[in-house]
Amino acid sequence: MRHIVTSPIVLGLVVIQPVSYETHMIMKISRVLQQTRSQYQNIEIVELTEYGRALVLDGLVQSTEVDEHIYHESLVHPAMTTHPEPKKVLIIGGGEGATLREVLKHSTVREAVMVDIDEKVVELSKQYLQELHKGSFYDPRGRVLIADGKEYVEKTQERYDVIILDLTDPYASEIAYELYTSQFYKKISNILTEDGIMVTQAGSSFYYENVYDKVLASVRDVFPIVREYNVWVPSFGYACNFIIGSKRHDPEKLTREEVDKRLKDRNVETRFYNGRTHIALMNLPIYRKARR
Amino acid sequence: MRHIVTSPIVLGLVVIQPVSYETHMIMKISRVLQQTRSQYQNIEIVELTEYGRALVLDGLVQSTEVDEHIYHESLVHPAMTTHPEPKKVLIIGGGEGATLREVLKHSTVREAVMVDIDEKVVELSKQYLQELHKGSFYDPRGRVLIADGKEYVEKTQERYDVIILDLTDPYASEIAYELYTSQFYKKISNILTEDGIMVTQAGSSFYYENVYDKVLASVRDVFPIVREYNVWVPSFGYACNFIIGSKRHDPEKLTREEVDKRLKDRNVETRFYNGRTHIALMNLPIYRKARR
Amino acid sequence: MRHIVTSPIVLGLVVIQPVSYETHMIMKISRVLQQTRSQYQNIEIVELTEYGRALVLDGLVQSTEVDEHIYHESLVHPAMTTHPEPKKVLIIGGGEGATLREVLKHSTVREAVMVDIDEKVVELSKQYLQELHKGSFYDPRGRVLIADGKEYVEKTQERYDVIILDLTDPYASEIAYELYTSQFYKKISNILTEDGIMVTQAGSSFYYENVYDKVLASVRDVFPIVREYNVWVPSFGYACNFIIGSKRHDPEKLTREEVDKRLKDRNVETRFYNGRTHIALMNLPIYRKARR
Amino acid sequence: MRHIVTSPIVLGLVVIQPVSYETHMIMKISRVLQQTRSQYQNIEIVELTEYGRALVLDGLVQSTEVDEHIYHESLVHPAMTTHPEPKKVLIIGGGEGATLREVLKHSTVREAVMVDIDEKVVELSKQYLQELHKGSFYDPRGRVLIADGKEYVEKTQERYDVIILDLTDPYASEIAYELYTSQFYKKISNILTEDGIMVTQAGSSFYYENVYDKVLASVRDVFPIVREYNVWVPSFGYACNFIIGSKRHDPEKLTREEVDKRLKDRNVETRFYNGRTHIALMNLPIYRKARR
Repeated sequence: MRHIVTSPIVLGLVVIQPVSYETHMIMKISRVLQQTRSQYQNIEIVELTEYGRALVLDGLVQSTEVDEHIYHESLVHPAMTTHPEPKKVLIIGGGEGATLREVLKHSTVREAVMVDIDEKVVELSKQYLQELHKGSFYDPRGRVLIADGKEYVEKTQERYDVIILDLTDPYASEIAYELYTSQFYKKISNILTEDGIMVTQAGSSFYYENVYDKVLASVRDVFPIVREYNVWVPSFGYACNFIIGSKRHDPEKLTREEVDKRLKDRNVETRFYNGRTHIALMNLPIYRKARR
Repeated sequence: MRHIVTSPIVLGLVVIQPVSYETHMIMKISRVLQQTRSQYQNIEIVELTEYGRALVLDGLVQSTEVDEHIYHESLVHPAMTTHPEPKKVLIIGGGEGATLREVLKHSTVREAVMVDIDEKVVELSKQYLQELHKGSFYDPRGRVLIADGKEYVEKTQERYDVIILDLTDPYASEIAYELYTSQFYKKISNILTEDGIMVTQAGSSFYYENVYDKVLASVRDVFPIVREYNVWVPSFGYACNFIIGSKRHDPEKLTREEVDKRLKDRNVETRFYNGRTHIALMNLPIYRKARR
Repeated sequence: MRHIVTSPIVLGLVVIQPVSYETHMIMKISRVLQQTRSQYQNIEIVELTEYGRALVLDGLVQSTEVDEHIYHESLVHPAMTTHPEPKKVLIIGGGEGATLREVLKHSTVREAVMVDIDEKVVELSKQYLQELHKGSFYDPRGRVLIADGKEYVEKTQERYDVIILDLTDPYASEIAYELYTSQFYKKISNILTEDGIMVTQAGSSFYYENVYDKVLASVRDVFPIVREYNVWVPSFGYACNFIIGSKRHDPEKLTREEVDKRLKDRNVETRFYNGRTHIALMNLPIYRKARR
Repeated sequence: MRHIVTSPIVLGLVVIQPVSYETHMIMKISRVLQQTRSQYQNIEIVELTEYGRALVLDGLVQSTEVDEHIYHESLVHPAMTTHPEPKKVLIIGGGEGATLREVLKHSTVREAVMVDIDEKVVELSKQYLQELHKGSFYDPRGRVLIADGKEYVEKTQERYDVIILDLTDPYASEIAYELYTSQFYKKISNILTEDGIMVTQAGSSFYYENVYDKVLASVRDVFPIVREYNVWVPSFGYACNFIIGSKRHDPEKLTREEVDKRLKDRNVETRFYNGRTHIALMNLPIYRKARR
């Protein structure tokens, strides 16, 4: 039994965000900083009263000041920490620069390439979302390419230790879905080093179970070691799923102490992720609706 | 970066539920089965298209068919499993019978007393929410008292191994708040056996951090061993917090294997909780907003 | 300048109703009396806190206790009063019986036939919406046929003095739209007496100007005398438009005094419509968006 | 019976506007141009997809490009036209300049004084709402004073032919309510010429019947001739009420032809108001909920 003060909807400007087909979230806006349209999507940068500054693409919150660390640390660090010495890292997507920021925290990294298709998102993030990128765009080890991630993966001659897929959701569109097929994961595998590791965000297994299961099967088609985990992200309205595909290193084998040691050795400072969090993520059940 | 199909709000009958002061959730209703008012609250039993049959009190979803197991298993089993042999259990609140159902799964239990103030909730749950109580109301080891939980705790001569506080949220009202003070926890401690353990649901540390911190401090005032954990409950729109106060047994000391063994020995079958889940809950960070 | 107390959204069960493509209305529900699906549509009978008992079809409010008289009196009486002696009246649609109720108020009427396709709407209205039909279903002068209105119009050998089209909106679907074409109005004209008059509700000229203009043109194709008027209906969220097509009698020619005399002679008692209202309806501008 | 295409809520940025205690309106925003707070209120200037550029104060739409002419013409012209030769006009409120614009259309006017308390509304309207004020702020016959309207009325030595009260709603607050009492109307009467006429907007008689009736009684306490009328304003979500108090001239006595002649003689061009509209407004019933 639970019960909270019946709070009024604070009226005026709000964002109505779809959480799933028949669940939506209403969030109060205090200020709208930018509204524009790129070639690919509607881009809005707003202040939400409860979540701070936020990037909103096509009506969906991508990152907010108060909880983006939960998403980005959970996306980046389990894979990065599992690899014993990640030097070269590729990020597909991640336009606001926060994924790049987390990757660059690892002192082992010599080169981090971020490939995002939408230049406007990158530009506006530089201008308005300093709290999110924290200057990562200007780190000499980082490189931002405005390009189609799929093409980049097909053509590059480079090899990467870690690849992070910070993509639009698999149920977003047919184009998005292409980046969640075993065909694509084979190409990812081809440009990973022989002990390379990849991670993809994978939407919501609770609300979109069928799509999620297909993505999971695709990763399993290609990688010998596959691990799933999920983390509630307040401003998304759901627990976001992630899937790791790895050639040799298994994130489940890492102890709490090993994780903490690697983070310390690499000078990684975090707010959400650490050795204990790693253990939690590897053990928390994947959310699914109870069969009725 | 994430992106989902821009889904329309399915129009018609919906529930608008406050998640916090300035965040709300809209959920589509397929059918309304009961609407009434007891002496204490508005009671609605509805079918939600995405969550199945649900109990709604004063506009707040309490339990739904598709995710109540996440809440109730997380509330009950960490404390129950930590106690080596829980025979007598007290539940305050829990009117729909699902907490009682989980308690009675432990074959060690000889007597489980559930004290809820609202007879109408119990009656309607018996009639409409068979999927939630699963007959627990009719188990000979269970006993349901319609009474004020606070008074019961003050007057009873019984002693309990485990006490489960399935109460309205601490920020709900002054009356609710009384059941989250150190004064009340002292009384709880008095009716626990010398190795007794209690657990309370504690609302949301993310959205109501100040209130949560006071409750946590109150538990710490009384119990030598205090453990916190939180679990996303989809139909609540947030991760629900729980706090355990224990006199002797520490839930963090249990290994995955010990948890699984105890569940097996006691014939406890679950859908969400097990040894791995226990480890996850004990290690997952408590959600708080990032300092801005 | 205007300003009202910032009222909270009363949370819990609500209806979200589309007013147009990008405007919606939220109305608080106090009780749900019936929810079902007929062969044609979802049917809900609810109590709205501000509007009383209401019939809702496919998520759209059709009639509510507190304002249905505004819609039904405005639909029925201008045409009925304009005809000097309406004896035989045909209603297409109007399942909840309120249009029939208004027609039967005219003591000149000897026979009123109502043709509605959805038997379930009629049945549930009889059971739950006594305040709307006021027993009109049981008047010996009335006759309710469950049939396709279009087919009825094509096949009937009867001739009518007044025909009232209480149909779904013209922008609802292709099927609905068929009942707003000049082909259909020709058939209507064929079964009108030589001084017959018809009226149709016509949705919203403000929000759906293009569709409205086509309907208007279709009526003009067939009838020598065409008059438009519109009336705000609170629970619809807009001013509802009506179009009269007449063979001989012109509603604009009636004076206030003549209207009042006819109503008195025929023993018609109303709450909204009278001689003054008639003058207002014939003179109020048709709502259209200002050209930007 | 009516039925429209079940349109999805267009998600993303919206305004949720209270229409009454338990009815709300959701309107899609395409762009936010300004958000600020003055000493008195939150001020937002937005583009609404269906209504164009709009002024929003404390979450309530005041004027939109596509329908403000309906409100402002209905507020200004019935009173102005009823007076045979309005030379000096006082406006209390009306910060966005549209009321002033309508007043100045009458070529009889030599001086129009507008008194608004909120300088920021006036400034931002000058900057962003050219389509609303149409340059009226720069007309040499107009004068804008930033001052408390109540104090101005008490202290001024001027006498006016017409006074227009474009105030916040009577149910907005106690301060607002003061400007709707017989005490205040007496002061208004004192500064009217001996054949002077005043008009006030009066909120919604449908949704706030009790408050409306008090305001009406207050006007009747002071003026020998009192006329009420109401007009649906789409972006308000309701029919807005107006009350005229007059010392000698009666708006109901004007014929359609006289109104049209006066408008023509004074070179007044309008989009909504004319002789026919005047007749409609004087005859349309005042909206009230049917007694249940």
